[in-house]
Amino acid sequence: MADMKLPTRSEDFSEWYNQLVLKAELADYAPVRGCMIVRPYGWALWENITAQLDRRFKATGHVNAAFPLLIPQSFISKEQSHVAGFSPELAVVTHGGGEKLEEPLVIRPTSETIIGYAYAKWIQSYRDLPVLINQWNSVVRWELRTKLFLRTLEFFWQEGHTAHATFEEAEAETRQMLDIYTDFAVNEAAIPVIPGKKSSSERFAGADATYSIEAMMGDGKALQAGTSHNLGQNFAKAFEIRYLDQAGALQHCWTTSWGLSTRFIGAIIMVHGDDQGLILPPRLAPYQVVIVPIFKTDEEKALVFEAAKKIREQLAKADIRVKVDEREGQSPGFKFNDWEMRGVPLRMEIGPKDVAKGSVVLARRDRPGKEGKTFVSQDGIAESVQTLLVEIQKALFNRALAFRNNHTFEPKNLEEFRGVVEQGFARSYWCGEGKCEEQIKEETKATLRCIPLEQPGGSGVCIFCGQPSKEVAIFGKAY
Amino acid sequence: MADMKLPTRSEDFSEWYNQLVLKAELADYAPVRGCMIVRPYGWALWENITAQLDRRFKATGHVNAAFPLLIPQSFISKEQSHVAGFSPELAVVTHGGGEKLEEPLVIRPTSETIIGYAYAKWIQSYRDLPVLINQWNSVVRWELRTKLFLRTLEFFWQEGHTAHATFEEAEAETRQMLDIYTDFAVNEAAIPVIPGKKSSSERFAGADATYSIEAMMGDGKALQAGTSHNLGQNFAKAFEIRYLDQAGALQHCWTTSWGLSTRFIGAIIMVHGDDQGLILPPRLAPYQVVIVPIFKTDEEKALVFEAAKKIREQLAKADIRVKVDEREGQSPGFKFNDWEMRGVPLRMEIGPKDVAKGSVVLARRDRPGKEGKTFVSQDGIAESVQTLLVEIQKALFNRALAFRNNHTFEPKNLEEFRGVVEQGFARSYWCGEGKCEEQIKEETKATLRCIPLEQPGGSGVCIFCGQPSKEVAIFGKAY
Repeated sequence: MADMKLPTRSEDFSEWYNQLVLKAELADYAPVRGCMIVRPYGWALWENITAQLDRRFKATGHVNAAFPLLIPQSFISKEQSHVAGFSPELAVVTHGGGEKLEEPLVIRPTSETIIGYAYAKWIQSYRDLPVLINQWNSVVRWELRTKLFLRTLEFFWQEGHTAHATFEEAEAETRQMLDIYTDFAVNEAAIPVIPGKKSSSERFAGADATYSIEAMMGDGKALQAGTSHNLGQNFAKAFEIRYLDQAGALQHCWTTSWGLSTRFIGAIIMVHGDDQGLILPPRLAPYQVVIVPIFKTDEEKALVFEAAKKIREQLAKADIRVKVDEREGQSPGFKFNDWEMRGVPLRMEIGPKDVAKGSVVLARRDRPGKEGKTFVSQDGIAESVQTLLVEIQKALFNRALAFRNNHTFEPKNLEEFRGVVEQGFARSYWCGEGKCEEQIKEETKATLRCIPLEQPGGSGVCIFCGQPSKEVAIFGKAY
Repeated sequence: MADMKLPTRSEDFSEWYNQLVLKAELADYAPVRGCMIVRPYGWALWENITAQLDRRFKATGHVNAAFPLLIPQSFISKEQSHVAGFSPELAVVTHGGGEKLEEPLVIRPTSETIIGYAYAKWIQSYRDLPVLINQWNSVVRWELRTKLFLRTLEFFWQEGHTAHATFEEAEAETRQMLDIYTDFAVNEAAIPVIPGKKSSSERFAGADATYSIEAMMGDGKALQAGTSHNLGQNFAKAFEIRYLDQAGALQHCWTTSWGLSTRFIGAIIMVHGDDQGLILPPRLAPYQVVIVPIFKTDEEKALVFEAAKKIREQLAKADIRVKVDEREGQSPGFKFNDWEMRGVPLRMEIGPKDVAKGSVVLARRDRPGKEGKTFVSQDGIAESVQTLLVEIQKALFNRALAFRNNHTFEPKNLEEFRGVVEQGFARSYWCGEGKCEEQIKEETKATLRCIPLEQPGGSGVCIFCGQPSKEVAIFGKAY
């Protein structure tokens, strides 16, 4: 924690990000290339994310389970697109217990195959459907270019896997989970996202349809922040997941899968952070308020600590996540910087004068400097803090939304398109042809992020080929 | 769920266990030898276990984090006893991303080494101590003889890893965590355990001292249900985990580690289960009460379902975990058997007559038959249920304790010893020599489970060599 200074976002966004992750002690590099250690502060953030998602999953009838991390290599080959997509990324276990294995095992890159195997065993009749299972785990994909949280060899996530009797039910499930991700992003993480459908080139390996939520980062680039796949009957056929329907006929199931990962922490950093460090949305922050006692003499210290303790108790009682920074030998200034780097939404300063006046100073992390400071009475402090936290949550969302709106363009032609995707998103009509999508990518480095569920209606012409088009797509450079 | 009958415990305890795990849908076999799938009902139980432990860890100042599952093979070799203990059990990744790796990686069998690497980086000064980190994860050990929950290639657990400035602090931490495991076993799982110290032959590979909690299963055998290790400076020296003390001198840290795994689910099954299936302690049961509606006509059904719904709401409001079994096409008898197999502590039956009388039938899982049935008014149903759940929790503990007491012996000589360890524990004086311990094992197949922290005082003679001895040890056949 020696050097608290980051490069500014405008001078080097990428390096700003890398150093922030380390200095806020969210994560660290592991001894194995591309792996990460999620440090306690980062993991506390992830625990809050998981709690909010898990609550939503359970409220919609899902249950958790745990499937093994070792998968027979042959399983991956059973679904054709799946093997093509994942083979290059596999970590392979060839030896166990000192002996060479007869069949190599892979560490799961995702669990469709092993779960398909289990569902084929468990599902017999229409009475067993739907099966709605989720698991919280980690997966391994042998990525070449890695970046903490955004792309690591091992990452942490949840993967939901469901089986249904009909296509309609599977599609409804796929969309429901996309809605849940959207609701989570907006209402917990204060991140505006665009829910939409992926083009066929960006589909999950083995899916009939992939939906995603796309978010705009602070540098105008896109980040895919969660995905939901309608797998059709592809895995059901590869693994013989079948059920007897009410008429007694044997049918293949329709399956889905959906996931959100520690990558989302990268989104939170890049959407809300500023040049001083992280800014956390109050609803997910490990500490919502940090109290920094300010004193010179031992007498003052005793006075201030006692007041801080009382306030902490009141806040904790109101379910506000609060910490008193009692560290010895660190100046208040150092502590301010430290908690700013870590993005705590509210800082409370309390010195002898505040104790005398029965007040405290509250400083908002999202509005640095004088503008974000208020003097607040210690009476009813929990309500005052609660009100401010709600305000901060709202302000973060509005700021992110305004930024995205200001960086979303409707270019008139490819020339303009080329320019705007350097700054943000292009909303453009697209003819639906993979060929156009591919050439746009080649010529501009922008990819088709998604075809938003919300369409303007009407029609226009494809930004690339000029053919009449009915659908608008979002294009952008992506992480 | 076709066949609900188990072998009785007295005719084949091992097969009773295996079938119970499958029929209660706690876990299933995976396609890879020795791996397990923890099914939703088993995972819900594990989630309740983790919540109760995590609460205790956090209340004592611990935080969670996540370290990678891939470890450079060379790390394992850095601590001499550690490599000797774990080398034969490793799963080795030799290929990644389609290429042979320069250095093979192992899937963590436990994380002392990779966490040692991180602590060496993070810890500089006495101000950074203690470091109190836990992680919830899975580890892989290439076991040859496996059994669901008790010994699997991959298993789920928590592993705590702490670093301290002094031996005393490390020892206090080691003992504190043993106390927490004891408290958890007794008060949440209703399992009486013996906290004690392991003999040197049973120590963790790399520890100076290993403590464990030992429980007696329903067949009289012992199960080690949680361990806490004082690692001394062994890993600190191997990984150069050092700090500057207050005088400015560089010192090696003192570290600990402690873990409790899904094996504990095996203990719950084998301590409380009966010939009808699982019996869960109310404090950990995924469902504490299951309501089975009983009806013949559609009119009765509507009546009974409405009453069941109201009761469910009252119970849920009182934080009682309740489920109404609304399955169509299954008889009440089938449902009774099913929930008995799954060990739900209380079954509530409600039929048209009960609705008319404003009462319900409550049937205790721990007392099958008429003896465990009571008629209870629907008024104040939440309190009645709560009271019964507390009673059941207590009754399970008392029954397990009585069983253990009845199966714990103080044999007078080796001949008696040989007989009693076929039925339970032998409490015997032991001279402290590894030679005696080894010969006891050879001649009787009983191992030294632990040297209980609570000693009778006084002295006696070693059960094997007859030398004067001050310490009593617990011997038994073990899982």
